Amino acid sequence: MKRSFIREILEHTSSETISFAGGLPDVSLFPREALQSATHTALENAESLQYGTSTGYAPLKEQIAGHYCKRGFPTTPENIFITSGSQQGLDIICRYHYGASITIEKPSYLGAFNIFKLNNMKEYSVPIAVDGIELEGFRKSIAKSKLAYLIPDFQNPSARCYSDEHRKEIADIIRESQTLLIEDAPYSELYFHAPHKSISQMLPKQSYHLGSFSKVLSPALRVGWIRADVELLTPLIAYKEAMDLHTSGITQRMVWEYLKDGTLYEKHLQTLRVAYQEKMRYFSKQLDLHLPSFEYTQPKGGMFIYGRFKGVDTRALVQECPNHEIEIPPSK
Amino acid sequence: MKRSFIREILEHTSSETISFAGGLPDVSLFPREALQSATHTALENAESLQYGTSTGYAPLKEQIAGHYCKRGFPTTPENIFITSGSQQGLDIICRYHYGASITIEKPSYLGAFNIFKLNNMKEYSVPIAVDGIELEGFRKSIAKSKLAYLIPDFQNPSARCYSDEHRKEIADIIRESQTLLIEDAPYSELYFHAPHKSISQMLPKQSYHLGSFSKVLSPALRVGWIRADVELLTPLIAYKEAMDLHTSGITQRMVWEYLKDGTLYEKHLQTLRVAYQEKMRYFSKQLDLHLPSFEYTQPKGGMFIYGRFKGVDTRALVQECPNHEIEIPPSK
Repeated sequence: MKRSFIREILEHTSSETISFAGGLPDVSLFPREALQSATHTALENAESLQYGTSTGYAPLKEQIAGHYCKRGFPTTPENIFITSGSQQGLDIICRYHYGASITIEKPSYLGAFNIFKLNNMKEYSVPIAVDGIELEGFRKSIAKSKLAYLIPDFQNPSARCYSDEHRKEIADIIRESQTLLIEDAPYSELYFHAPHKSISQMLPKQSYHLGSFSKVLSPALRVGWIRADVELLTPLIAYKEAMDLHTSGITQRMVWEYLKDGTLYEKHLQTLRVAYQEKMRYFSKQLDLHLPSFEYTQPKGGMFIYGRFKGVDTRALVQECPNHEIEIPPSK
Repeated sequence: MKRSFIREILEHTSSETISFAGGLPDVSLFPREALQSATHTALENAESLQYGTSTGYAPLKEQIAGHYCKRGFPTTPENIFITSGSQQGLDIICRYHYGASITIEKPSYLGAFNIFKLNNMKEYSVPIAVDGIELEGFRKSIAKSKLAYLIPDFQNPSARCYSDEHRKEIADIIRESQTLLIEDAPYSELYFHAPHKSISQMLPKQSYHLGSFSKVLSPALRVGWIRADVELLTPLIAYKEAMDLHTSGITQRMVWEYLKDGTLYEKHLQTLRVAYQEKMRYFSKQLDLHLPSFEYTQPKGGMFIYGRFKGVDTRALVQECPNHEIEIPPSK
């Protein structure tokens, strides 16, 4: 199995390199001091250092469930399963559905492909249009798929966001099938205008909704989760136990302490939205000025700008970039 | 796949329960204050919160390599691969060797069986005697095994420790074969008298040595590692990336900051050895006094006492225990 191109080059990136490769959050936006103080409090209790339960620290599951409820998606702590990042969440689900057929977007998150390979999945790709995955292709693909893996909010890498109408249609198609939706939503809180209703919310019994603190608090935490119906979560527990027993109780309690003050997190999310929108505006202005041959649509949230060059051999460009301390990922 | 009995009952253990089921370290022995202070320092740097490299935080790998060198096992940082606990280390190795045949001790660590099942391994069990796994059975089993999984130091659950002579013989048998050794060593530092040379040290090109901070610092860290030849480690990187990208950079840096003061860790290990030996002596005295029907050998290290009851229906005993707020694990 080959390594991820992006993670491989991340290891060789120097502080001089200008990298457009990995989805690294801005270090200066991490709520460092608040997390430091939350950690200090969490470590006042020696129990924070002991083994924990397989599906996660109960008070943290309660907080996450509360967050879903606030967004209008009724959720109890039993619907939350903490994982070591949502990367592991996807692997656990696919490992349980070993060998299954899966409908994915084209393009899709590069880091998912090795999970599919490792779990012997049969992939069917359907192009993603401006409003979301193409409906006709999706309908046909779903008919032969056990699973569908979608990233409806500001997708990595295309930056596209499904419209509300499109989400409804996708939910309708899945509801009439035996397919289970895996909705990966690490960027859902990073909207510049308004949040979108998740597709899972329209399919609570037929979906795994993947969440993560990596893009909104810190990726070094490795704290993510699966939100699903209890019947879907229960068979996953034995897998999690075999894979790493449980997610770090220390980083789980860090997050829990941080979230305890209800207003801190909401304020921080608002800061992120403003900051990433400013970055996007600045960068898109520079693109228009200096790279008029680059065609793209301004994203409505998230961390990515995606597009194509007119009349440029991009294969040669990608290869030449490292000689100028610049990194651009190739498309899959 | 069934859940681990031990992890399942851990979830239902109240503070009133006297549990002999899981291998939980003593909370009062965690170096809580030192870890708290190390974490505070680590979180002074916002880079601690960013994504990290797949094989682990380089300065931590350097410290762990140094620890091996001090124990007489020449090791460089390139020989160290950080995992989310050594549970994940074992899963990564087995996933890479999917479907392979594996020689294991009887009894063996319960948490390993679901890893073997998940990775479609073919297990051959060989009884473990007082000095280590039975040599004749081992020799025969190795002839048909791609891998051997051994826990030579104060094994979970048997508490047995391989003699130096036995380790040499095991290494000789493996050296003459094509088999790769997986040596699981979470208890190796918890010796009451003297440390033992690892078998891997005699087979540096033919072994994966699994280490962990769970039993000596804190299991909530979920920081373990694989020590192996670079050629054995390289193909595992793509697996780790697919499984959880990398282990928490926060808990890795906690450990790194803690280990930086070279004397702190060595002193702490000495405290643990004395404390666990005292516990063992006290418990074995009580066993002799109150349960003369229980036959066992005093362990020379680690956290377990293992034995058998004379003339007692242990199946009925295990079932009756929870009614008295006591938990005893059944043997596999």
